[in-house]
Amino acid sequence: MALIVHKYGGTSMGSPERIKNVAKRVAKWARAGHQMVVVPSAMSGETNRLLGLAKELAPAKETRSYMRELDMLASTGEQASSALLAIALQSEGMDSVSYAGWQVPIRTDSAYTKARIESIDDVRVRGDLQAGRVVIITGFQGVDENQNITTLGRGGSDTSAVAVAAAMKADECLIYTDVDGVYTTDPRVVPEARRLKTVSFEEMLEMASLGSKVLQIRSVEFAGKYKVPLRVLSSFTPWDINIQEEAKSGTLITFEEDTQMEQAVVSGIAFNRDEAKISIIGVPDKPGIAYQILGSVAEGNIEVDMIIQNIGKDGRTDFSFTVHRNDFARAMDLLKAKVLPTLGSTEALGDTKICKVSIVGIGMRSHVGIASKMFRTLSEEGINIQMISTSEIKTSVVIDEKYMELAVRALHKAFDLDQVQA
Amino acid sequence: MALIVHKYGGTSMGSPERIKNVAKRVAKWARAGHQMVVVPSAMSGETNRLLGLAKELAPAKETRSYMRELDMLASTGEQASSALLAIALQSEGMDSVSYAGWQVPIRTDSAYTKARIESIDDVRVRGDLQAGRVVIITGFQGVDENQNITTLGRGGSDTSAVAVAAAMKADECLIYTDVDGVYTTDPRVVPEARRLKTVSFEEMLEMASLGSKVLQIRSVEFAGKYKVPLRVLSSFTPWDINIQEEAKSGTLITFEEDTQMEQAVVSGIAFNRDEAKISIIGVPDKPGIAYQILGSVAEGNIEVDMIIQNIGKDGRTDFSFTVHRNDFARAMDLLKAKVLPTLGSTEALGDTKICKVSIVGIGMRSHVGIASKMFRTLSEEGINIQMISTSEIKTSVVIDEKYMELAVRALHKAFDLDQVQA
Repeated sequence: MALIVHKYGGTSMGSPERIKNVAKRVAKWARAGHQMVVVPSAMSGETNRLLGLAKELAPAKETRSYMRELDMLASTGEQASSALLAIALQSEGMDSVSYAGWQVPIRTDSAYTKARIESIDDVRVRGDLQAGRVVIITGFQGVDENQNITTLGRGGSDTSAVAVAAAMKADECLIYTDVDGVYTTDPRVVPEARRLKTVSFEEMLEMASLGSKVLQIRSVEFAGKYKVPLRVLSSFTPWDINIQEEAKSGTLITFEEDTQMEQAVVSGIAFNRDEAKISIIGVPDKPGIAYQILGSVAEGNIEVDMIIQNIGKDGRTDFSFTVHRNDFARAMDLLKAKVLPTLGSTEALGDTKICKVSIVGIGMRSHVGIASKMFRTLSEEGINIQMISTSEIKTSVVIDEKYMELAVRALHKAFDLDQVQA
Repeated sequence: MALIVHKYGGTSMGSPERIKNVAKRVAKWARAGHQMVVVPSAMSGETNRLLGLAKELAPAKETRSYMRELDMLASTGEQASSALLAIALQSEGMDSVSYAGWQVPIRTDSAYTKARIESIDDVRVRGDLQAGRVVIITGFQGVDENQNITTLGRGGSDTSAVAVAAAMKADECLIYTDVDGVYTTDPRVVPEARRLKTVSFEEMLEMASLGSKVLQIRSVEFAGKYKVPLRVLSSFTPWDINIQEEAKSGTLITFEEDTQMEQAVVSGIAFNRDEAKISIIGVPDKPGIAYQILGSVAEGNIEVDMIIQNIGKDGRTDFSFTVHRNDFARAMDLLKAKVLPTLGSTEALGDTKICKVSIVGIGMRSHVGIASKMFRTLSEEGINIQMISTSEIKTSVVIDEKYMELAVRALHKAFDLDQVQA
């Protein structure tokens, strides 16, 4: 008998009929002898409906009081879907009980709309499991030390599920979603893309941060921190699929670094076109410049992703970085108003028509041929590289966005990702 | 500066536009210097929508576990509308905060779907009021000692508002609704029906229990127990109506018995056709019979309203009572199966085509002419009286339901209720 956490997204919970299917699937697992905790999202569309109502009434300024009420409001979506799932399980003959975040409690900080989980008290839930109940816990939400409801931000139900699994030392956390696992790259771009049976936690983290939307990045961080065995799998298989088969489907996120380290394979190609590039030309090549530039950007609450500074000549250098496209105009305004005047004879060049393409794989750095093979492949396709950035397990390049699909396909082929995994 | 509780029904909260109007009205009261606590219902239709979803998933048997989940589910409606009202108030420039029942907390027993309030802790709410905030408290719900969410049953938001007003010793509790007060009778039946400027708590209690749907009966009981000054008034006046005028509108429910006792007027005519009559003919006229009959009915969890037993002759008597029409068939089955066989040579006659009409007024019993005037009036209209029941402040008759409107109109005129109140 194992303790298993299931997480179901909004699409899986989208109608009474679908909730019935989730209940049948969960009941199957419970009848197989497992202790079951289930974390559902709100019914699809519900969170948007609620926030749409709030928008019609919203004050001009997004005050903290306003954010608090948004969390009061949005958290009702998961409370309702959790109660409905408990009811559906009862109809399946399973004793079941649902808890809102505050009832568990799932304790968070007080950062409304993007709170972080601080602790989970599992005494009550464990009591129910021992009494043979299936426990439903609302995703997406918690409670701060002053009994205010908080939410974890979009996609926060993934994080809730992993956090619950970590706190309860669950044997596995299964994230049911509308894709059937993690792929070597986006199958819509490369039809030959292959599902990975396993992927290391570090690779998954890079995949998530690079735009692969399978899992919320914070849930992956959480899984890594607490070594929660995490599986991403499809909620679109029939509920009565053989349980042994189901338990092996999807993609398992692993933590056994030693077995993976020596393989030195590229596991996947990630990409996104959410970023814009900003270059400051002719910057004085002296200490404190990076801080002078990026300090102002950070004060404007703008996140910076890649940062590149070239070796200077004649006492001048070029300094480039990328920001989210939504922040691009604001970052440019801020640089022109506050930073450039203090640097002297410099100009800022912006480009929103870029994309970032990355190869991801454990042990990449210790295998010298990997990065150069990436650069050669892009060169053979006539694609100019504008920026390069590397880490232990990924190499990223910025290129013209019109070449994105071409680059992803070429790299997927060059690294043999269409071949069956060993 | 007074402490005022406002309660708004689902219709008043039915859309963002209407919520804005509620916010403007509340802000007007707050700006006039009052400390404001507001108890809203769920947006109209929301509770039905949620319970409709539950119905599609409901188990065959209504277990306690199921009732618990219904309360988890239904309580989200008020949590959402409360957050939206707080947001709308913030947009009006008023600092505002919303609390779910468990956050106050409003402590109840554990009778899911029909819980009773046991205590309200007002420390947190009072702190907010002193800090100049408008406090929104979800109607309809509370929390039991094990941190389970409970609801108070349909119309429970009235009770929540009165209970909060009682706990906080509010100066007045204003129930905003879709009628503009309490009438001498239903204006749809008697166009000459007149709004009462004041009505005593006892009369209101009879009105509510007799089917006048203006206020939930438990809220009236609560108001009486704690002497909460309660006013029923219209939510359809323009929000910017003069506040002194608004404060005097509607109907005030009073507790000054001494001033009313001597008037001995009939305040109103109440009626309903929710009941059915059951007569057991030829019952042995001996001790224990009433218990023998009604004990079985009570064990079947069927509420009995009027009970009449005539003087017997030849050692036999007739025994009649009324039950809710929804319970009629079950009550008849139960009597035939369990009670009649033990009584010997008796039969049970049922009639669902009845109605109950009552005249209500403080001090009625001490004025001998009142009841006989009622009977004479009905007689003059050719209406046969099937049952009579009296109390300190009301006289009720059961008649054929086809005469209901005729009886109500005739009594309304006979007791001069269309004349302006002294």
